[in-house]
Amino acid sequence: MKRYTWSEANTDERQRILARPDQRASPEVVAFVRQLFAEVADEGEAALRRWSKKLDDYEPATLELSPTVLDSARASLASEDIEAIDFAIDQVRFYHEATKPKPQAIEPLPGVRVRQVWRPIATCGLYVPAGTAPLVSTLIMLAEPARVAGVRDRVITTAPGEGGAPHPAMIVAAATCGLDRLWLIGGAQAIAALALGVWTPRAQKIFGPGNAYVAEAKRQAAALPNGPAIDLPAGPSELMVIADRGANAAMVASDLLSQAEHDADAQVMLVSASDELLAEVEVELQRQLTGLPRESIARRSIEQARAIRVRSLVEAVGVANDYAPEHLSLQVATPGDLVDSIENAGAVFIGAYTAESFSDYVVGPSHVLPTDAAAKSYGGVSVASFMKSFTQQEVSAAGAQRLAGAAARLARLEGLEAHARAADIRFAPARPAEEAVRRRCGEIKRTTKETKIVARVDLDSVVPVSISTGVGFFDHMLEQVAHHGGFSLTLSCAGDLHIDAHHSIEDCAIAFGQALKGALSDRRGIARFGFVLPMDEAEAKLSIDLGGRPYLVFDGAFAAPAIGAYPTEMTKHVFRSLAENLGATIHLSVTGENDHHKTEACFKALGRALRSAIRVESADLPSTKGVI
Amino acid sequence: MKRYTWSEANTDERQRILARPDQRASPEVVAFVRQLFAEVADEGEAALRRWSKKLDDYEPATLELSPTVLDSARASLASEDIEAIDFAIDQVRFYHEATKPKPQAIEPLPGVRVRQVWRPIATCGLYVPAGTAPLVSTLIMLAEPARVAGVRDRVITTAPGEGGAPHPAMIVAAATCGLDRLWLIGGAQAIAALALGVWTPRAQKIFGPGNAYVAEAKRQAAALPNGPAIDLPAGPSELMVIADRGANAAMVASDLLSQAEHDADAQVMLVSASDELLAEVEVELQRQLTGLPRESIARRSIEQARAIRVRSLVEAVGVANDYAPEHLSLQVATPGDLVDSIENAGAVFIGAYTAESFSDYVVGPSHVLPTDAAAKSYGGVSVASFMKSFTQQEVSAAGAQRLAGAAARLARLEGLEAHARAADIRFAPARPAEEAVRRRCGEIKRTTKETKIVARVDLDSVVPVSISTGVGFFDHMLEQVAHHGGFSLTLSCAGDLHIDAHHSIEDCAIAFGQALKGALSDRRGIARFGFVLPMDEAEAKLSIDLGGRPYLVFDGAFAAPAIGAYPTEMTKHVFRSLAENLGATIHLSVTGENDHHKTEACFKALGRALRSAIRVESADLPSTKGVI
Repeated sequence: MKRYTWSEANTDERQRILARPDQRASPEVVAFVRQLFAEVADEGEAALRRWSKKLDDYEPATLELSPTVLDSARASLASEDIEAIDFAIDQVRFYHEATKPKPQAIEPLPGVRVRQVWRPIATCGLYVPAGTAPLVSTLIMLAEPARVAGVRDRVITTAPGEGGAPHPAMIVAAATCGLDRLWLIGGAQAIAALALGVWTPRAQKIFGPGNAYVAEAKRQAAALPNGPAIDLPAGPSELMVIADRGANAAMVASDLLSQAEHDADAQVMLVSASDELLAEVEVELQRQLTGLPRESIARRSIEQARAIRVRSLVEAVGVANDYAPEHLSLQVATPGDLVDSIENAGAVFIGAYTAESFSDYVVGPSHVLPTDAAAKSYGGVSVASFMKSFTQQEVSAAGAQRLAGAAARLARLEGLEAHARAADIRFAPARPAEEAVRRRCGEIKRTTKETKIVARVDLDSVVPVSISTGVGFFDHMLEQVAHHGGFSLTLSCAGDLHIDAHHSIEDCAIAFGQALKGALSDRRGIARFGFVLPMDEAEAKLSIDLGGRPYLVFDGAFAAPAIGAYPTEMTKHVFRSLAENLGATIHLSVTGENDHHKTEACFKALGRALRSAIRVESADLPSTKGVI
Repeated sequence: MKRYTWSEANTDERQRILARPDQRASPEVVAFVRQLFAEVADEGEAALRRWSKKLDDYEPATLELSPTVLDSARASLASEDIEAIDFAIDQVRFYHEATKPKPQAIEPLPGVRVRQVWRPIATCGLYVPAGTAPLVSTLIMLAEPARVAGVRDRVITTAPGEGGAPHPAMIVAAATCGLDRLWLIGGAQAIAALALGVWTPRAQKIFGPGNAYVAEAKRQAAALPNGPAIDLPAGPSELMVIADRGANAAMVASDLLSQAEHDADAQVMLVSASDELLAEVEVELQRQLTGLPRESIARRSIEQARAIRVRSLVEAVGVANDYAPEHLSLQVATPGDLVDSIENAGAVFIGAYTAESFSDYVVGPSHVLPTDAAAKSYGGVSVASFMKSFTQQEVSAAGAQRLAGAAARLARLEGLEAHARAADIRFAPARPAEEAVRRRCGEIKRTTKETKIVARVDLDSVVPVSISTGVGFFDHMLEQVAHHGGFSLTLSCAGDLHIDAHHSIEDCAIAFGQALKGALSDRRGIARFGFVLPMDEAEAKLSIDLGGRPYLVFDGAFAAPAIGAYPTEMTKHVFRSLAENLGATIHLSVTGENDHHKTEACFKALGRALRSAIRVESADLPSTKGVI
């Protein structure tokens, strides 16, 4: 490896230390791809056949994955290989199903509904490069996210192996991913076939890594009129390892070599504040290199690899963020602090046991990741890469009253009179009485001789939650209500604590109740809800009816007079103030031994019951009716 | 408008009906942009000055939004305009905060943790085209999502208005969006400045619509080595309205005109199964056209507009999906069915009152949307457009044992020995005893003389839920448990229903309990939970302790002997079977009048209590401790 000391390098030198090979396509590559696209646009399949024959010495073909083909492929593989393929597919499927985008419903104002929905892209081309061996993992890492997204037509294309047939592992993996055929064509020709729709409708998006010809073909495809979208720019693979003195040099070296064996251009970087570790890894590299099947490739890559000596792990993170590696491995004793500072990476591997190899095959997330510093603006392939979102917007007559004035005003400011009139025509001056026109916020500013309080509730946001009543325990209780209730609550109180906590607690409860009442407004969609909540030996049962009638039934008693500065007798009082000012019927019973637990259980139960009662639930709510 | 009848057109004719103007940049545009980029790369600012002076007759400048500048801008605007700007920004902010991507934690296997995190892109260029008037709305629709994402450097660039200064509304909007300066430079020059980093570090992503020069400049910028990412391809604006006989022709016409006034190239389409409606809209168009300030532009666009007569609304949706309009308006009496069938659109507006104008200014989602059929593969600008995601993967020593074998196997299949060794080096044959290595699934296959049952529970997935016990009402009950519990349950039973439902119901409860017990395994992280749930007049209170000890306390009675084929006496029996086979203490009491409600409340309460009890909660859980 080449050795550098970061602190001794100036800006230009630092750029050179982190430089990658220039990924610009050569003029010959650009010209070839342009000619290929023109010929394929003109002659279709004939041009593809001619070029594949000439360049790669095979005829493009399609292989149907019939039961016979599949059985024969399975028979020629070891059962452990089939199990490994099944395991990898299961892991990849699990991760992607868990991270599939979900629809979301937002109601910014009464009568104004927005739903963000996701739909799969209909037709995708998935390019699996032909290595010296079958890249089964890349097939899985593309085909499974596409399957989870719901893509209708997944076309997998790859160059055939020796003898013009794909490796049996490719057949088994493709079939297990639910595909029923493989395209046997590689290189820029495959991309041209997908982009120009030679055998199937044009691909709407093309995925997968490849050599310089493939990368240039993807670029030119994207520039076609109505050309396909492209997953991400993909060049030679990259790994940066940040290691501390305690790192296992043999493990670090094994990761660097697993990167180096890809290709003489693979980018391998080691960053450490420890000279000893850097030296140990160098020794390990030489030891492990010898005898690798791809030793000569790995050796050339390691010669170009860079060992960067930094002064601290913080400096190392700075180097990583500048470089934005495809893969970043943190082999340090306490990775926690560093992880949160990582801004730019394709994927981050935390700790000694998280081999990059695991991620390449069996952890779950797709290994198709941005290289060449593209991680500064691109994420890796995910289910969302195979989908697109749009909004469904629905404005009622009442909603239109609220929007029309401002929309028309802005349209006229922009000189777009027809826009303004399209707003005006929806506007009727009389507001329908039945629908209140406001966001679900309530704010109360309440000042008496005893307390000065500002309370604000926003039922459509979970932040901020910021409570300052002057009574620590009561702050804690109101935080429970907001967090468990899932809404934003800010409340500050300056009260006469020099007397006692009574006025502050009572008045905060009043202000909170009033702010919540204001936020609930016409109480559309809200109902009766209850919650029973255990907390160690204590149990609180609370049911609430937000119908507007104030009533409290409280069943419970406390042994101690106070918890910190908070008198236990205030709990019943707080709930009564709340019931009265919010306009709610609350039945609360609490049993147990520990007053802290009992009190906290009461407030948590309130939060949980409110959470159900106040939500305008989104459509992915788990209810068999589709609605609460 | 030009009139077409869809059913009478053949495939080629249909393509022509939906054809858009060719968006390929002319050779002159391509050559100019290439020259501009080369000169700016060479000379920097001097080249930008020269071209801006020559093409647009102004000098590029930067305007600091100082208090003085801002005060003076505010003073020159009507207070209603300032309010409209504030309102629009508030709406846009609200929507984007609600849809900001959230991190997600997934644990595919014990000892294997993956966290998908999101980070803002650091530097973005936001291009606001200069119309004949200030495009305040486009500024807001780009700057606010970027702000919500957390982008550090948001550069807004726009051509100055008359006199070399921006319109006061642009100043006020920019300042309210939290910006402190405006770049006054337009056209391809602005894109070159952003992409090549003339005044600031290179933009990592460039956003915004523009003319053919701007679009070509964005394309060329993206093709630079380490070039910026690009938001989406943006060409002339598009609106398709699907209207039925009952649509308000004046409203439909007003929407079509608000599209048409943008530009003579704006794409305006009306699709209807009603000749009367098509005729009415044509009359309204002519009536509303007269006297529009941009009448001549709108008239040219409407002349090119297309009215497509379809046979049904289903056919209309097919036309919309083929065309993939930027804006799609559904002005029909029952839009519900259609909405779910829309696959390709930039945004969908539902119902007569949802003017496209509202969405352009004040609904909330960004109005920067894909045109030219790009909606088939791209979504519009969102907070996620200003962020990228990556995964943080962490494998423990025990996790490595589970992954290493399969990873090494696949690596060797791919001929990557160093990858295999990096996996092997993490592998130690002895499994640590303390960490069970399994996903939280349980599967039971149970066959007796009376029933044959397969039950499968996956606590880490919400799908599939598929129940077939042979007793309709009981299927419904178990679906409630799975949906409200938030887990996957598949259960099929072939039982002796010719005798009665007893054996099937009981044995399904046993199998479900056993499968759930298997899935819970070592019961890591689970506890005691309860739920009280009202359902009309009925209320069920259920508390559960998953500690392993089977016990049922049931308090309730039913009046009717059966609900459908389901005997009400089975409810107590089902819960006992569950308690015994799951290893749970369950206390259940139910009151009410209606047996259906009472029974359903029992099962829903079970689902809700299980939901809390089984979750491995993610980090965004609303708890003041940060953990349950």
